[in-house]
Amino acid sequence: MFARNAWYIACTRAEISEKPLARTLLNDPVVLFQTEAGTPCALEDRCCHRGAPLSLGYATPAGIRCGYHGMEFGPDGKCTDIPGQTIIPAKAKVKSYPLVADGDYVWIWMGDPEKADASQVVSYPPDDPVKWPRANDMLHLQASYVMVLENLMDLSHLSYLHKSSIGSSEEDSANASMDVTRTDRGMRFLRVMRNADAPANWRKRYPIGDKVDRWSDFEFVAPCSIVQFSGGVKAGEYDQGKRDGYHLVRTLHAVTPETDKSCFYFFNKADGYAQFEDPNKVRTWASTTDVFKEDAFMLEQQQLRLNGYDTSQLMDINTDVARVRMIRALNDFIRRDQGIDAHPSSAGVAAQ
Amino acid sequence: MFARNAWYIACTRAEISEKPLARTLLNDPVVLFQTEAGTPCALEDRCCHRGAPLSLGYATPAGIRCGYHGMEFGPDGKCTDIPGQTIIPAKAKVKSYPLVADGDYVWIWMGDPEKADASQVVSYPPDDPVKWPRANDMLHLQASYVMVLENLMDLSHLSYLHKSSIGSSEEDSANASMDVTRTDRGMRFLRVMRNADAPANWRKRYPIGDKVDRWSDFEFVAPCSIVQFSGGVKAGEYDQGKRDGYHLVRTLHAVTPETDKSCFYFFNKADGYAQFEDPNKVRTWASTTDVFKEDAFMLEQQQLRLNGYDTSQLMDINTDVARVRMIRALNDFIRRDQGIDAHPSSAGVAAQ
Amino acid sequence: MFARNAWYIACTRAEISEKPLARTLLNDPVVLFQTEAGTPCALEDRCCHRGAPLSLGYATPAGIRCGYHGMEFGPDGKCTDIPGQTIIPAKAKVKSYPLVADGDYVWIWMGDPEKADASQVVSYPPDDPVKWPRANDMLHLQASYVMVLENLMDLSHLSYLHKSSIGSSEEDSANASMDVTRTDRGMRFLRVMRNADAPANWRKRYPIGDKVDRWSDFEFVAPCSIVQFSGGVKAGEYDQGKRDGYHLVRTLHAVTPETDKSCFYFFNKADGYAQFEDPNKVRTWASTTDVFKEDAFMLEQQQLRLNGYDTSQLMDINTDVARVRMIRALNDFIRRDQGIDAHPSSAGVAAQ
Repeated sequence: MFARNAWYIACTRAEISEKPLARTLLNDPVVLFQTEAGTPCALEDRCCHRGAPLSLGYATPAGIRCGYHGMEFGPDGKCTDIPGQTIIPAKAKVKSYPLVADGDYVWIWMGDPEKADASQVVSYPPDDPVKWPRANDMLHLQASYVMVLENLMDLSHLSYLHKSSIGSSEEDSANASMDVTRTDRGMRFLRVMRNADAPANWRKRYPIGDKVDRWSDFEFVAPCSIVQFSGGVKAGEYDQGKRDGYHLVRTLHAVTPETDKSCFYFFNKADGYAQFEDPNKVRTWASTTDVFKEDAFMLEQQQLRLNGYDTSQLMDINTDVARVRMIRALNDFIRRDQGIDAHPSSAGVAAQ
Repeated sequence: MFARNAWYIACTRAEISEKPLARTLLNDPVVLFQTEAGTPCALEDRCCHRGAPLSLGYATPAGIRCGYHGMEFGPDGKCTDIPGQTIIPAKAKVKSYPLVADGDYVWIWMGDPEKADASQVVSYPPDDPVKWPRANDMLHLQASYVMVLENLMDLSHLSYLHKSSIGSSEEDSANASMDVTRTDRGMRFLRVMRNADAPANWRKRYPIGDKVDRWSDFEFVAPCSIVQFSGGVKAGEYDQGKRDGYHLVRTLHAVTPETDKSCFYFFNKADGYAQFEDPNKVRTWASTTDVFKEDAFMLEQQQLRLNGYDTSQLMDINTDVARVRMIRALNDFIRRDQGIDAHPSSAGVAAQ
Repeated sequence: MFARNAWYIACTRAEISEKPLARTLLNDPVVLFQTEAGTPCALEDRCCHRGAPLSLGYATPAGIRCGYHGMEFGPDGKCTDIPGQTIIPAKAKVKSYPLVADGDYVWIWMGDPEKADASQVVSYPPDDPVKWPRANDMLHLQASYVMVLENLMDLSHLSYLHKSSIGSSEEDSANASMDVTRTDRGMRFLRVMRNADAPANWRKRYPIGDKVDRWSDFEFVAPCSIVQFSGGVKAGEYDQGKRDGYHLVRTLHAVTPETDKSCFYFFNKADGYAQFEDPNKVRTWASTTDVFKEDAFMLEQQQLRLNGYDTSQLMDINTDVARVRMIRALNDFIRRDQGIDAHPSSAGVAAQ
């Protein structure tokens, strides 16, 4: 179940061009392209004439032309040319979706165009390539977008799923403090592991010592985004208010449903420590994708186990506190989107 | 939805032999083979004993023997031998389908055998290898057979889908005259582009000049065949009645449903100009298959877009005149086949 | 339809180790593993927390730990550790399945654990590597387990499907005597071909002459096992009671349903003649797998032909006598398993 009146990432800025891109979003076939004049467009990817995908056509100065019998459509979805006839009936149109290009992304509004409010786009991480050099990638998962959000809301999985990559020790993880709060647009958790073991790759990169304070500040912005601010300082420095100087990361996680059981997981990671380093240094974020592939594999297998399964048989544990609150906020958002009064709902409903 | 009381191409003459060929036709599993005595047969490809495909067996002097437990069946589908017993019960039989071998093809009757009338087979193009040297090929498409027929009934797609191969200019296409008439067995259109630009490959092959008259005479013979006669002459010659001498083609298009959403598209093209050329010249028709593969790709993508879609939302345009009439004739044929009184039906019903 | 209160082979002894093995059995996802302490376990392969497959986790000294958020489960399926909390609620558990390791196999009980009776495991062939050297293999088939059992109950297929491998002549096969009897746990047939042609590979291996008596003694033990004792002696010796000395085979065939239309076919063949040969001789049973692959291919094709087909249209023939009795015994077993009074049922019900 999706909230349609919301912004989702349709594609990266790099992906949209005069070469049409076909992508199914929230079960709708969508073609993403720019006109030759440079206007980014998102239209229903099905010609109103015979149903051919417009993505097999080509961009024109002011729209896109179907590659089958040549009907042309403008950015608003209205037909602008029908070969062989001069009158264009009012019903000659396809659905058009509002877009907002922001930072590295093109966001799409899948609901009522009248309700689209560009100010609601999640603008993150900071668009500052000097102070916050960043990189992004995307994983196409055969799993519900809800599972990706849930995964990010329970960091206890780092000690198990990412044991050999970014994981903290099981003991440090179990001792983490956890504060969950409601926000205007969703919820937020702050998780701090004080006096924890410094990860090996931190010690290599930063003069941080063996013992560190690690914090993870994750804000869920309904229905699809998680804004992450996390890092590490020397043990004791966190409570003194220090944040800069060592490991310091701002990441946008945004998950767009493709179908009920598949999604596009976009992530964009800005490295705050890199500002202290030589700007000519070659930087790679490939390891981030590698870590998220560990999640992707687990989530796809989890999806297979839950297909046709009554998820009310599953049980919540202590570490689920943020996950449960996130699901509640997401369900509230979906209910409001569907015109149903929001009320506290049990965790897991959206995931079913 | 298929008309069953009709001839469809089951396979080419070259395809039928003592080696059994399994092919699903109108959702029925069929085995096509010749007995060792040379009789072509089409039987239900499912042994009446345990359901094994007879196509995994082998031809015998007078039939086919199942490769699992050895029951043998004759051309009429009746069992002729049961290993281990002497009495053959009346119910020991599989369905048998009437066949007609004609020209390059073996045609099959999928309905009531009593109604099979060999004179209704579409015999085309002329079986005259000297005057009309010809070649055939087949494409197996994941799309409804109706879509292939519709594709051929709206030649305006040549200017877009086949722009870089056989396409005419958009302007010439828009100026084409179009006459659509009813026929005993379906309908027919005659499309003429007068004083049009000669395609580059015509100018290379024929002394035809820069401006030509091009005609396309397509007859739909319900439920699955289109008989094409088309060509080009110097501009002005068409209305003087000239047809021979330059580009001149007779093509049979015959589409056999495999399932509701897949089909076998057989085509057989005879080149009338070749009679004026050196008969020892090597001729290839490979480019025809290449062009039709452009259609195949589009049709399969179109099918995906229409799966589960309410096609009544699609709209007809001027260039659909022949397509709409063809659908009407096809639906009339299907209704008659099902014993329903024919009456004008809306376009697209058969395609749903 | 499966009987759940019964032993099925889950895997071979060689397959179970500390590395978890995921296998779907009777539609249930199961993880098979040994604890570090060596206890073989079969648990529901779906963590009760978020549904992740436990098979993606790892064995611990006394159980298995989920690879997602770290919950640990013991051999009885009860949770033994929840990271981040000390209280373990009673509902923190997954399903546990009784196992019996016997001979080369690990057998699993898919029904009510209270009813599991280890003495009902089919212990065959004899665990005697000197007198009965043996080898085993497994084929994973996209066909109902019932079809595999049926295949083995009608040996007339040897003359057709295995014509070029182990097949007897069609005439010898048609003249075979056949005795079918009821047993406590199913049924049994004894098929004897007297004075039959000796297979070429027998004449090569044994001083058996051109004419032989061949017997096949197959006992079906409901719901999934067939115990085979078969061989050949010189023509005339069978009725004198001679069995040893030439071709002599004891094979266990055990078929475990994976889903309604797929199964694991385990077979274990002991060669009784090998005891008379040099024990240092290298022996291979690869040809057995090759022969059974002929069956596997046919059965998968048969399954495709029967999907959605009304199998009551199929007909039984004389050679089906044992198959029909086997189906009756299997259906009786399934009815008893489901608490329905057993009564003679028509053949083929279980196969539907």
